Amino acid sequence: MSLDAVLARIDADLPASLDRLFDLVRLKSISADPAFFADVRAAAEWCVRELAALGFEASLRETPGQPMVVAHWRGAVKNPAVRALVYGHYDVQPVDPLNLWHADPFDPKIETRDGVTVVTGRGSADDKGQLLTMIEAMRALIAVDGALPVNVTVLVEGEEESGSPSLEGFLEANAEELSCDVAFICDTNMWARGRPAITGSLRGLVGEEVVITCADRDLHSGLFGGAGWNPIRVLTRILGSLHDDHGRVTLPGFYAGVEDLPETVRASWETLGASPEVMLAPVGLQTPAGEKGRGLLEQLWTRPTCDINGITGGYTGDGFKTVLPSKASAKVSFRLVAGQDPAAIRLAFRNRVEEMLPPDAVAEFHPHGGSPGIALPFDSPWLVKGLAALEAEWNVPAVVIGCGASIPIVGAFQRLLGMPSVLVGFGLDDDRIHSPNEKYDLESFHKGTRSWARIFAGLAG
Amino acid sequence: MSLDAVLARIDADLPASLDRLFDLVRLKSISADPAFFADVRAAAEWCVRELAALGFEASLRETPGQPMVVAHWRGAVKNPAVRALVYGHYDVQPVDPLNLWHADPFDPKIETRDGVTVVTGRGSADDKGQLLTMIEAMRALIAVDGALPVNVTVLVEGEEESGSPSLEGFLEANAEELSCDVAFICDTNMWARGRPAITGSLRGLVGEEVVITCADRDLHSGLFGGAGWNPIRVLTRILGSLHDDHGRVTLPGFYAGVEDLPETVRASWETLGASPEVMLAPVGLQTPAGEKGRGLLEQLWTRPTCDINGITGGYTGDGFKTVLPSKASAKVSFRLVAGQDPAAIRLAFRNRVEEMLPPDAVAEFHPHGGSPGIALPFDSPWLVKGLAALEAEWNVPAVVIGCGASIPIVGAFQRLLGMPSVLVGFGLDDDRIHSPNEKYDLESFHKGTRSWARIFAGLAG
Repeated sequence: MSLDAVLARIDADLPASLDRLFDLVRLKSISADPAFFADVRAAAEWCVRELAALGFEASLRETPGQPMVVAHWRGAVKNPAVRALVYGHYDVQPVDPLNLWHADPFDPKIETRDGVTVVTGRGSADDKGQLLTMIEAMRALIAVDGALPVNVTVLVEGEEESGSPSLEGFLEANAEELSCDVAFICDTNMWARGRPAITGSLRGLVGEEVVITCADRDLHSGLFGGAGWNPIRVLTRILGSLHDDHGRVTLPGFYAGVEDLPETVRASWETLGASPEVMLAPVGLQTPAGEKGRGLLEQLWTRPTCDINGITGGYTGDGFKTVLPSKASAKVSFRLVAGQDPAAIRLAFRNRVEEMLPPDAVAEFHPHGGSPGIALPFDSPWLVKGLAALEAEWNVPAVVIGCGASIPIVGAFQRLLGMPSVLVGFGLDDDRIHSPNEKYDLESFHKGTRSWARIFAGLAG
Repeated sequence: MSLDAVLARIDADLPASLDRLFDLVRLKSISADPAFFADVRAAAEWCVRELAALGFEASLRETPGQPMVVAHWRGAVKNPAVRALVYGHYDVQPVDPLNLWHADPFDPKIETRDGVTVVTGRGSADDKGQLLTMIEAMRALIAVDGALPVNVTVLVEGEEESGSPSLEGFLEANAEELSCDVAFICDTNMWARGRPAITGSLRGLVGEEVVITCADRDLHSGLFGGAGWNPIRVLTRILGSLHDDHGRVTLPGFYAGVEDLPETVRASWETLGASPEVMLAPVGLQTPAGEKGRGLLEQLWTRPTCDINGITGGYTGDGFKTVLPSKASAKVSFRLVAGQDPAAIRLAFRNRVEEMLPPDAVAEFHPHGGSPGIALPFDSPWLVKGLAALEAEWNVPAVVIGCGASIPIVGAFQRLLGMPSVLVGFGLDDDRIHSPNEKYDLESFHKGTRSWARIFAGLAG
């Protein structure tokens, strides 16, 4: 295989690649709206046809919802021992409000926006454009070499924009078939235009609602104030204990298993210009709220948090009512990083609540979700090779970034298939995914395809 | 004057006194309902007629709402230097739900309820029965002696059950005419059946709503969690700081001016049997929430409090939303005792909030009410004489009790007329005031009248 030949092939084939992207974008595969049921299925069938035409053993697989596309390449030329899964989704978000679109969302075009050449249309970025960067890269590899360098399984989902209700069942039912050494997912962003990135870590989440009850009815503070326990007082005292003066969470064992950021990564993050002025000022904030002494990106990506997402108790309407309410409640969540045990964190929180309850207060707990943080080790070969491939393509150091939230597919791959995921995406913050006038930079599509060719080629070595 | 003759007169006149109470209860003086406007006025006119017939210089005085009844007795025989104001109200609460009454609320009767002889009907206790205990006592004093022992001004209001909208203006406009040495108010309860009481202290109130704003919009905790300030975290940390481990309020200077309970009073309260089992268990509580080492009644009556009456922020519906809200707010109130300065308490709270705000949070304050606590000194002659009179009548030590709430008329008399109030009432917790089937014990009416004769007689000495 000559990588140069593959890249040249991608360049030469760009017009045809764009035609294929346009074909796919024209299919109105809105999974959330039953009116588009047939269009969604048509997009799945399109994927099967394209993959079969490339030589994959491709099939449309039924689920209780929209079908999965599964395609296997079993005849790797370079290193058939390596099995990589490639994941994307063929469904898109709804398009309303339609009147805010400058053109038909399902009639893709090339246009120049703010001096940048882009492909327009719903799904041009999320995720049809991104998905095709992987497929077009494989097309070129196969065209030049007659085969892929490693064995590949493609999984394309049709319900990602609807919460993936059929995904976990499908993974469980087909675990053996789908388990690979590593998954590559193209559904994330670069750090910035021209600055490629791999998302190496995702935070998990433990959500917990706590309801504190004191008296068995609301009381008048003129009759009971001072002697009657007030659940808001109890609750705020407990919640007020969760952080220390340095922004650290005070639950015992909260940081057990949390690893410090390697100096090299910290240094690379310092080159990203993610100052409070850039990251916080746009939403009216100035100073990072997290642990003192940790950088802003570190706080967002690789440090666990405790936040109160909702609280309510007593009288909250206009004016004033001197009530001692019977109940008060809060929704508390913890963003977790790799190494933390969600069950242990939940238990530590519950223990804190129970320890601080006065004898007259009772706490009830309602769990909401519990998923661990996930991180590729910074020295993971998948990560190291991916970064090298991206740097070669973009002529700039690629950066390992984090994501402060969860991405369910990554957790599902890890939990159900024991498979790590490498998140490489070429989206940009201004792609307007989920909004009117979605676009994908032509550069993202073209250099994204070239990037994947380099990444896949590198897997064999 | 022979007090025995006066008391004998009250006994002999009881049937006629009851007839007069029935006459007044029959007047449907519901001040809250405009449909009863004429009935309310008729009750005022009834009071004027009765007081004029006793020899008072009585008049109906117009206000923007219902009229005031003002009557003066200027020809005291014993000690004309003493001027006492007597206050009650002639209006009553609405009667709905009418279907829960066992009989017409405005057709009073004598009946036996749970073995106790009672007068039934709306206003039988609140406040027509209580008001007439004062007027019937004066009637007997005048009948026997030809005059009252001290000079008396009677003020009877017709909007007490509607928030007294005309009262303060009337007091201000007629301050000189109405200012006396002391006010006697008959609109409160005994400690228990057979155990007379004077309410010697009322708590004041400072209400304050605080709104904390961090970011200028709601944020996603996956994108900002850890680095973005969360106003619920800020608010709960502040509110959680307001009490120490001993239940004391931690605001600097909060207890300045607060006096300790005299040992004699503490001892008398210990005779009242006000255990947590009696006071708290009925509402599902067990242990007093206030300052450790202080009795339950002390916590309710003579110690200041801090309570959070309402709190809200973020997502409070079903399920979970990982939002970092822009705002969170709480309604905080302080029940104050005599000696505390409401303005200083409000300022101390605001200072605490400001001191604990991180740089990215802004607090807004909305004041709601501010009234000082009020207390008769435990050695006040009015109080001492009143207790002696009650003890003589009821053959049991009378007790100085407190009230954990404010009574607006007492504050208005103090603030606008510089006049202390002595609250003597013969209501009982089971009188069902404001509810269907209101009643007043016949004993409360009869011995209440005799009690007032003793109190008024005692004022001259």
